[in-house]
Amino acid sequence: MTPFTSIRADSVIAQGELKLIAGIRRWLGAASPKSPFGIGDDCAVIPPTKNHQLVTTDPVIFGRHFDATVPPRAVGAKLLKRNLSDIAAMGGKPVAAVISLALAPETSLAWLRGFYLGLAKCAQDHRVKIVGGDITEGPLGFVGAFLTLHGESTGTRVVTRSGARNGDSIYVTGSLGGSLLGHHYRFRPRLAEGAWLARRQEITAMMDVSDGVAKDIDALTPATLSPALTAHSIPISAAARRVAQQSKQSPLHHALCDGEDYELLIIVRGGTDRNRFERNWEKRFPKVKLSRIGHFTAKNRLPDDAVRLADYRGYEHLR
Amino acid sequence: MTPFTSIRADSVIAQGELKLIAGIRRWLGAASPKSPFGIGDDCAVIPPTKNHQLVTTDPVIFGRHFDATVPPRAVGAKLLKRNLSDIAAMGGKPVAAVISLALAPETSLAWLRGFYLGLAKCAQDHRVKIVGGDITEGPLGFVGAFLTLHGESTGTRVVTRSGARNGDSIYVTGSLGGSLLGHHYRFRPRLAEGAWLARRQEITAMMDVSDGVAKDIDALTPATLSPALTAHSIPISAAARRVAQQSKQSPLHHALCDGEDYELLIIVRGGTDRNRFERNWEKRFPKVKLSRIGHFTAKNRLPDDAVRLADYRGYEHLR
Repeated sequence: MTPFTSIRADSVIAQGELKLIAGIRRWLGAASPKSPFGIGDDCAVIPPTKNHQLVTTDPVIFGRHFDATVPPRAVGAKLLKRNLSDIAAMGGKPVAAVISLALAPETSLAWLRGFYLGLAKCAQDHRVKIVGGDITEGPLGFVGAFLTLHGESTGTRVVTRSGARNGDSIYVTGSLGGSLLGHHYRFRPRLAEGAWLARRQEITAMMDVSDGVAKDIDALTPATLSPALTAHSIPISAAARRVAQQSKQSPLHHALCDGEDYELLIIVRGGTDRNRFERNWEKRFPKVKLSRIGHFTAKNRLPDDAVRLADYRGYEHLR
Repeated sequence: MTPFTSIRADSVIAQGELKLIAGIRRWLGAASPKSPFGIGDDCAVIPPTKNHQLVTTDPVIFGRHFDATVPPRAVGAKLLKRNLSDIAAMGGKPVAAVISLALAPETSLAWLRGFYLGLAKCAQDHRVKIVGGDITEGPLGFVGAFLTLHGESTGTRVVTRSGARNGDSIYVTGSLGGSLLGHHYRFRPRLAEGAWLARRQEITAMMDVSDGVAKDIDALTPATLSPALTAHSIPISAAARRVAQQSKQSPLHHALCDGEDYELLIIVRGGTDRNRFERNWEKRFPKVKLSRIGHFTAKNRLPDDAVRLADYRGYEHLR
């Protein structure tokens, strides 16, 4: 469904801001709490928390993160899920969100309604409150939704990207690549997995894979180390194999370089009883694959069979 | 200065994301704290707070909130100040911000540098930390910056928009209208004033004037009341008078309807010793004008000399 309409009466500009906000309240329903904790004041109010707070911001923009083939409800859900994935990557739980919209005047009300219904459903599924936001008119052909999500840590610590050491293992959840075929909006953020992992002391670092493992692994790699990945252990998705049939790249290339996997990339301390760790995982998450794809080694000490990451490049924005 | 360049080497697309983020860290300097409290992880981390938290989000978009006549440093500062004004309106103090950028590939690095330097300066002036964000490629000709600001209440209460009663006085800070001539980015958010007002029990409601008093007063008006404003008491700015010389509207119209005043609209309980309140204000804020522009009365009991607000319309988005 296209986000635009050529019939003025069906567009956001025909409504004006006040009616639009009334519509949004209705569409959000129970996902939006009452004032002073909801929409309608200069600021949203969030109660104080005891734990460390997590804040992340990610948008969806028409032509970039979605197009007319993605149902509007899926766009609304994707906006929240992209941000939920960041909270998951630090082992947190989500709490509340604000959303800033820039909409072309010809944006269709029917599209916007679907977007908000999808956002509201996803928010309720994850117990997130939509507490405030802003709507501004954007240029012709532009639809962008910018969400900021607040969460808090689920335990005593927040798992960051720094912490990996020589000999640590590299794990990844699920399978990788070919997200464009539908995973990019159908994925399930790994919140339960992230919270479970954050409680385990053997986890030294973690992040979510949004730009492809080949690029994202850099953010977890200390300056003196290199990641030694073994090609046969990379969990290549069926979608990556399908996409590879049409492209000039190998399935492995798609698995390592395609963006929007939204899986967890997990670093496990060297010397950990890996069999036990993997058995515990399987008991807790029997349906979620966990793959050990390599380990960290001293720089320039890469084994001969390690994947040459220089031959692969993850998705880089603004390139 | 235009935000765009036709020379590829001078554009954000020539840098790529990684260099760009390195540049942003440099430009932000001390305004961006070190990890895990700054840029570089999946989420920003904010320490727990004892008080109620305030969250607000407002963007600046090229062609809407600024154009090539506004210096890039002023655009960066304006982005933060718009949000600071919302925190001020609830009597809070600002703490930390995240910023989500959508930039056309031809966005100029020189412009972006100025934008960040202005943002960083304003953040340091107000002790706000820029703790995280996102950059995404936007369509040709688009530059939008979406900021979410976190603050906390400065005392035991948060002043909301609801609380006005029959007989309460309506006050406004500063002077109104003609913001387009420069006030829209040169204004100073009323943070000290907002915090001072929030501590006074005679203040029943408050908001910042962003779309013109004629429209914004509605948000403070309970369903059974009407605002009775007296024309001669409206503080018309010199800029509103200047703009009126070129437009077909009166100076009063500009004062009531132009957007982006960023002044505080304050409701004071009926029966308050107004002379004393005004003297206290003058002692604390000798340089900031405070005007009593009217009071609330029962609906349909408007005095004959009250401004007929139906003849005036504040700025409505998406109209």
